[in-house]
Amino acid sequence: MQDKITGINAVNEALQGGRKVEMVYLLEGQEGQRLQAIKEEAIRHRVAVKFLKRERLDQMAGNNHHQGVIALVEAYPYASLEDALALAAHRTETPFIVILDGIEDPHNLGAIIRTAECAGVHGIIIPKHHAAEITPAVGRASAGAVEHMLVIKATNLVNTIKELKEQGFWIVGADMEGLNDYYDCAIPTPTALVIGSEGKGIRRLVKEHCDLLLRIPLYGRVNSLNASVAGALLIYEVIRQKGVSGK
Amino acid sequence: MQDKITGINAVNEALQGGRKVEMVYLLEGQEGQRLQAIKEEAIRHRVAVKFLKRERLDQMAGNNHHQGVIALVEAYPYASLEDALALAAHRTETPFIVILDGIEDPHNLGAIIRTAECAGVHGIIIPKHHAAEITPAVGRASAGAVEHMLVIKATNLVNTIKELKEQGFWIVGADMEGLNDYYDCAIPTPTALVIGSEGKGIRRLVKEHCDLLLRIPLYGRVNSLNASVAGALLIYEVIRQKGVSGK
Repeated sequence: MQDKITGINAVNEALQGGRKVEMVYLLEGQEGQRLQAIKEEAIRHRVAVKFLKRERLDQMAGNNHHQGVIALVEAYPYASLEDALALAAHRTETPFIVILDGIEDPHNLGAIIRTAECAGVHGIIIPKHHAAEITPAVGRASAGAVEHMLVIKATNLVNTIKELKEQGFWIVGADMEGLNDYYDCAIPTPTALVIGSEGKGIRRLVKEHCDLLLRIPLYGRVNSLNASVAGALLIYEVIRQKGVSGK
Repeated sequence: MQDKITGINAVNEALQGGRKVEMVYLLEGQEGQRLQAIKEEAIRHRVAVKFLKRERLDQMAGNNHHQGVIALVEAYPYASLEDALALAAHRTETPFIVILDGIEDPHNLGAIIRTAECAGVHGIIIPKHHAAEITPAVGRASAGAVEHMLVIKATNLVNTIKELKEQGFWIVGADMEGLNDYYDCAIPTPTALVIGSEGKGIRRLVKEHCDLLLRIPLYGRVNSLNASVAGALLIYEVIRQKGVSGK
């Protein structure tokens, strides 16, 4: 299984990330600095480079938004929970996991992965069904962060949450029904943070397995934040509290 | 000058917001509950309703994403700084203003306005030139929040910042050059928070007029957050500190 990755930033991230790049196609006759840099990066990673005419690239990409570069990469390599825990141990950090309960919009999924990667989250768990998975569109929306983030697919989120609890995790959900404002409550660690889907929030069964529900206070007329913004506020609150407590 | 607003949520927000709606066009022969609700809301606001065939609506919208409803509304009514200060005084709150220095992506502009509206920000200042302005696309991206937010267009941001300083505001910028992490620093009030543009950040001249630069710590390989996420973190940090200090 292969994915096609298009665009300068996305291909750059793929080359620098852990995913095996099988081939890079570049627009023939272009000597732009950024395409040149990709060529050099590809050669450095011993990846074959091939030059194609614009029509061929357009055809391969299915559109003309490829910026003159397409990479064939092996299918997105999902990780396991053990991988994420091993990463935390390797960094000698308290594990911090984010669980996305049914984010359907690729743009939101990519945005949350980008924020989580910036914040140093060790792994993101997404459900196997009824949710967006890691596609090239998600990769672009994440500014390439998917290449540096361990994403874990769970067949059954509730079972995964039970497993996390056995490993000592506290399951913290972002939800309007929460009794505390998210910044008013000491968030217990290690934390697995649950973000619900756009509009629907966290599903009932998943919510029942949360140890703590935190709400984001809203003072306006519009009664909900975008899922990627809600996720960012909670993710960085965990980081903030870690910074303050020094844990 | 008129704007065309399309889609169920956006038209609903327009009807409930302050903007004068001149006409609502609905898809003929549809008796869906949400379109029915819009009809009733329009009648309640004494707005004329007209039924059109699908082709006519598609033509008017320029696409088929209108969900069966289009509203003609007066052009977006930009506000003044005085309006925003009056709103804060009316709510007996410390004024909180957000300044967007050249956000170009309508999706990001809408997303920041949505977050700011949810957080109870009193006004948003955008530059008159070289930046996205309030279009129907921005309105949709804001989930209708533009209708409830005072947006101020500034001919010259630096002059506006000087005016804010004379009014006693502290100008706080979100910037990688900041010496303090944003959550590690008491943010002085009343606050005018400056968010830079995607990629380029805050322009040098604007940055020189900031009293304080705060940085968002990044721990990953991707070296920047989306502008709407960075904005959300800073906006809610001001809210958090207000909550903690009780100001």
